[in-house]
Amino acid sequence: MAEPGASQIQLPTAFHYLNNDFLCENTPVHLIENELENTTSGEDDCRPATPLYIYSQAQLQRNIQGYKNAIQSAKMLDRIHIFYAVKANANLHLMDLVRKQNCGAVTVSGYELQAALKTGFVPEMILLNGNGKQIWEIRLALKNGCMLNVDSLFDAENIISVARELQKPARVLIRVNPGLEQSSTPVHSYLSTALKNSKFGVPLHQFDQVLELLKAEHLIQLVGLHCHVGSTIRDATVYATVTRTLLDIRQKLITQGCTNLKYLDIGGGLGIDYYHGTNQGQSPLSTTGDLIQAIASLLPPDVEVIIEPGRSIVGNTGILVTKILGIKKSPDGGKQFVVVDAAMNDLIRPSFYQAYHHVLPVRKTDSSEDVYDIVGPVCESGDFLAVDRRLTQQPVKGELLAIMDVGAYGIAMASNYNMRGRAMEVMVDGNKWKIIRRRENFDSLVRTMID
Amino acid sequence: MAEPGASQIQLPTAFHYLNNDFLCENTPVHLIENELENTTSGEDDCRPATPLYIYSQAQLQRNIQGYKNAIQSAKMLDRIHIFYAVKANANLHLMDLVRKQNCGAVTVSGYELQAALKTGFVPEMILLNGNGKQIWEIRLALKNGCMLNVDSLFDAENIISVARELQKPARVLIRVNPGLEQSSTPVHSYLSTALKNSKFGVPLHQFDQVLELLKAEHLIQLVGLHCHVGSTIRDATVYATVTRTLLDIRQKLITQGCTNLKYLDIGGGLGIDYYHGTNQGQSPLSTTGDLIQAIASLLPPDVEVIIEPGRSIVGNTGILVTKILGIKKSPDGGKQFVVVDAAMNDLIRPSFYQAYHHVLPVRKTDSSEDVYDIVGPVCESGDFLAVDRRLTQQPVKGELLAIMDVGAYGIAMASNYNMRGRAMEVMVDGNKWKIIRRRENFDSLVRTMID
Repeated sequence: MAEPGASQIQLPTAFHYLNNDFLCENTPVHLIENELENTTSGEDDCRPATPLYIYSQAQLQRNIQGYKNAIQSAKMLDRIHIFYAVKANANLHLMDLVRKQNCGAVTVSGYELQAALKTGFVPEMILLNGNGKQIWEIRLALKNGCMLNVDSLFDAENIISVARELQKPARVLIRVNPGLEQSSTPVHSYLSTALKNSKFGVPLHQFDQVLELLKAEHLIQLVGLHCHVGSTIRDATVYATVTRTLLDIRQKLITQGCTNLKYLDIGGGLGIDYYHGTNQGQSPLSTTGDLIQAIASLLPPDVEVIIEPGRSIVGNTGILVTKILGIKKSPDGGKQFVVVDAAMNDLIRPSFYQAYHHVLPVRKTDSSEDVYDIVGPVCESGDFLAVDRRLTQQPVKGELLAIMDVGAYGIAMASNYNMRGRAMEVMVDGNKWKIIRRRENFDSLVRTMID
Repeated sequence: MAEPGASQIQLPTAFHYLNNDFLCENTPVHLIENELENTTSGEDDCRPATPLYIYSQAQLQRNIQGYKNAIQSAKMLDRIHIFYAVKANANLHLMDLVRKQNCGAVTVSGYELQAALKTGFVPEMILLNGNGKQIWEIRLALKNGCMLNVDSLFDAENIISVARELQKPARVLIRVNPGLEQSSTPVHSYLSTALKNSKFGVPLHQFDQVLELLKAEHLIQLVGLHCHVGSTIRDATVYATVTRTLLDIRQKLITQGCTNLKYLDIGGGLGIDYYHGTNQGQSPLSTTGDLIQAIASLLPPDVEVIIEPGRSIVGNTGILVTKILGIKKSPDGGKQFVVVDAAMNDLIRPSFYQAYHHVLPVRKTDSSEDVYDIVGPVCESGDFLAVDRRLTQQPVKGELLAIMDVGAYGIAMASNYNMRGRAMEVMVDGNKWKIIRRRENFDSLVRTMID
């Protein structure tokens, strides 16, 4: 079921075939599924183990190491800080692995912040971001000594008011909205965040007003500037542009007496290769190294940079394993459907963003090329995982498929639509693996409804 | 903040203004919020009570009664059965109210079926639908004596195999895919389900094959035919077309010896007026009565009809109450944002389907017209509840807004994206109200991740 030119597919290092079996690190994926199937079969009249998220610990560490190596090559150790974007995947076990690599965390809600604290991230290396921070969330950040990005005039007012209430200092960065035009950010409009008409950041015309407000409050420590231009970015020179923009503003602020502007937070959003080299029409994808290189030479010696990778750290570490329930054909050469047990509630990216996720067979068998839609059991036509996908292996009822690159914005966006329990998550480490999130059962779904 | 021509807005009976306060039945909405605010303030550094789903019990009962009255007027009592589409809203308390009105339930997953059983729906009046039913779900249906819709060849095989395994009879209907063209169903493509290239139903070219398979198994009782053409349907004559199509097929089947075809399940999907009369450009919206009238005269005396309303029963019973966190302006006459504490994770319809939901102020104050985007705190540009919306009242920080018509596919599609806990649900009955779903807190979100 591999794509055309299957032999040229560039898979993440942790995933590969051995004797036609698809492996995560040293563990055949079907063995994990099989063992889970046996241990969980008591439940729900033998509800199967799939759909099932499987992550590679080695791939996660390799992705972070990629950033670290690039930072070291650029001689920027202790000058460029990796703050993991928790919203990509907030599994506590996974976050703990990230934390152990000495990363910070950027959070966008009170509970993400709590998750970061719970998994042991150093509070000083936790940042609370967001255009609609609530008072209770700001309290949580200030009580724990976390940093905050100031997103707007009203956000500045709220942060000041909580700092006064708690009599706690607040280390803040100002999030700048440079007011780009749509055409300059070739990503899904939902993933662009620095356009003129974006809800994020302080627009330049309001900058001075926000600045004066912050400077007037002694509890506020303005420690930097932030800009995040969007997500699924392919060209790292964007980050050079952002860095230059922020350095220009920084220079002006220094002349206005802001002397503690230690940090530039240039955001995250570096894309990953969802096509694995099979889409030759795409523009080249910058690497982690390109990103670091693009900014390193621009930095004055007294500036430290925060980067906020999410997708490029966890995206390719995860696969969604799903079982084929059956095949269905429309009449007259119409569509052919592979109906699987994963659905839009498990992975909404294909229908929400029209996102591409590569699909591979967990066991390679024959070679027989045809085009299919891969769809789930949810009762709406928007429930698909892949559309008009050319598969080079005949899909067979009962066989497993691996939906690639679902580590970011996979389980994080999952819902209980159609009252489907959310999937289990498994972390693989070499030839060992463990469940890091139990699947939801009926009781999980109705717990908050029962007194 | 009402729309232009606010005085002409046609609100659902249960919602209205009294002395500038917005009421659900006899209860001012801000009083509910206020009381919840006080009783829940101990949690999470005073996390507010909003966002908050509020439903009207009277409106729910009125909507069901509307169907019943139409059925009675058409002299079709005991001939047309209302099967509530659980996927619209699976709150157990709400389902219990529906069940007490002597409705059946149409379910699309094992857990929806369990929810229907748990809330006391008569098993014989529960139907399991779906294009990807799993073995454990079919087992659950057959063990409890529920009906099933057969969706495909492989679905027929699975149902037969479970019936044999359990030695239980299976009462089934065949879901027909009549193979419509896209142009004939003027609804969002994700909500069209009877197109030629739809994943749902048995296409006509495979019908005989499925039929023979079912007829050959003595445990299978073929009791009817089903067709569901889609969702947000405005013209009830669609249901007459569906009924005629199914009657034609039924006639053929009778000549082939199928003598127990008691039921025609003509599906659900009747739309509701999300614009409340403010969008004059829309085609007229058929009523419940139109639907019943459209089909009643077509029915032979030995046929009973199942209808599957979801949206038209619960859609307008619910509002989402959200607090304004602040106002934000883009430069140069660009967008103005009302940032609220509800987000796409609470209500995904606006960004997922580009759906319109009317927005009303919970307290009427001044009159001052302007255009805003209403956005949430989630960290992506796709997080909006209304775009370019003309409001006739100045939005003020701390004030409440009511997002209308969220009873269907509101909380049912909610997620924990950005680690946001899902909202509380409240049911109002006259001047009384009670919490029917507790909001999720941090522990709810990490429960399945902790051993």
